[in-house]
Amino acid sequence: MLLSVLQANASVMDVDANLRTIDDAARRAAQAGAGLLLTPELFPVGYAPLRLHAELDPGTLPAIRERLATIARTHRIGLVYSLPALAQAQSREQYDDAAQPPHADSAWHITATLLDAAGNEVLNYAKVHLFGPEEHKAFVGAEEPPAVVDFNGIRTSMLICYDVEFPEAVRAAATRGAELLLVPTALSAGFDNVPQVLIRARALESQLNVAYANHSGHEDVYNFLGGSVVAGPDGSLLAAAGEGAALLFAEVGTEAVKAAREEVPYLRERRPELYNEWDR
Amino acid sequence: MLLSVLQANASVMDVDANLRTIDDAARRAAQAGAGLLLTPELFPVGYAPLRLHAELDPGTLPAIRERLATIARTHRIGLVYSLPALAQAQSREQYDDAAQPPHADSAWHITATLLDAAGNEVLNYAKVHLFGPEEHKAFVGAEEPPAVVDFNGIRTSMLICYDVEFPEAVRAAATRGAELLLVPTALSAGFDNVPQVLIRARALESQLNVAYANHSGHEDVYNFLGGSVVAGPDGSLLAAAGEGAALLFAEVGTEAVKAAREEVPYLRERRPELYNEWDR
Repeated sequence: MLLSVLQANASVMDVDANLRTIDDAARRAAQAGAGLLLTPELFPVGYAPLRLHAELDPGTLPAIRERLATIARTHRIGLVYSLPALAQAQSREQYDDAAQPPHADSAWHITATLLDAAGNEVLNYAKVHLFGPEEHKAFVGAEEPPAVVDFNGIRTSMLICYDVEFPEAVRAAATRGAELLLVPTALSAGFDNVPQVLIRARALESQLNVAYANHSGHEDVYNFLGGSVVAGPDGSLLAAAGEGAALLFAEVGTEAVKAAREEVPYLRERRPELYNEWDR
Repeated sequence: MLLSVLQANASVMDVDANLRTIDDAARRAAQAGAGLLLTPELFPVGYAPLRLHAELDPGTLPAIRERLATIARTHRIGLVYSLPALAQAQSREQYDDAAQPPHADSAWHITATLLDAAGNEVLNYAKVHLFGPEEHKAFVGAEEPPAVVDFNGIRTSMLICYDVEFPEAVRAAATRGAELLLVPTALSAGFDNVPQVLIRARALESQLNVAYANHSGHEDVYNFLGGSVVAGPDGSLLAAAGEGAALLFAEVGTEAVKAAREEVPYLRERRPELYNEWDR
């Protein structure tokens, strides 16, 4: 499958402008033959945790999601987008008081959604590892491991931004069968080692394809790195962006995954019973 | 502390030649002001699992260890060396029949030992993750997590070769307080991504110094990569060798570790209770 990755600058709270950017990328990606377009963290509303918490009316979210489904359907392309979503009550109750945002009744997760080319939701994920004081004020971290779904013949999973910096989160996807990991992100300038070292290591140590889609330029108080990448299951870079807007393409499949897992059986030779004992 | 890392070619079963190489490196490292010399996996006897299993008389090991202690004592330098060692009976019994080598009564681990500058053993480690069919025939994997000891004011731990390719093993050292991880290895040519990507990622994701000492050239049926490295807690390369013999030097300390852990609190923001639940 040809995968496309959007790196772009979003306008905070300007949903129309951001959906135009996604629509344009989806059209170009589909024309190039891509089966899936990955977009950055919170791109449809812009990355601005405190402003989103203060200004975003959750009542507007269903319509935004419907417009994103229309983009996928119109261009006949799979789409990963990231939005805030109301946390389930059960999940909220698991949090202690210190972790609760001011209005626990409207606690939000940061989520990612995978749509198929008909616009149907086929996978959802809620971010487990929140980054920095603003995210911790505006959102609650989720507790569910990443799920895996078959997408165009490839076992596919998702994480969001800071999650992927923790090897344990990628292991959870890999041990559930993931061959392709899609990661919307919002990574600030200065953290070049995250895409250049950590993402390649995640791909290599769990032997799967990892696509990492970042913002570029300034949004709210943030200055983003760009530097989006796709890494293959041998740790090689299949595609890499500079600091400006970009639409990356990379061929991702199951053959390279199988070959890597054949050559060095990392997943088979893990010793989870020991790790669980060691990590108490 | 100035750390030195020996990359060299060993002669299989020629202990005298290999100890001369270590003695020479220890002399040069001490003269340069290094507090510690790290040497490759099984270097005193050469890397050759099947030949060691067939030819090495375990009765000779105590004298080899005493000679290594004399090297440390003579040059007043800490020393990490790696040797086979008889597995404890309890550990052997934990293995099922399939994993047992032919002579279970003399089952061996691959171990690493840290000596202080007076030649005293201050830390021992036995390899948990064995690599490839030869190691599995000649040795049994251990089950204990890496321990941590204070060495010249730096919390220090050890892993061996394939162990460090598993993020879980490095986490076990980091969560026990390690600031410096010493890794004797025997990595074949062609696996450049291990030192260049995985080792840097291990240092960055657990925010500690990682030193990785490899063989160079041919030993037995193996052709080694060289490519030894020292990586800092921000994922940067502090030192890196080419393919031939080398004595690397790098300044490692606790300040950079503290700074990295302050900037991005990976270890504090891990969620081990979830990982344990996810990894069953």
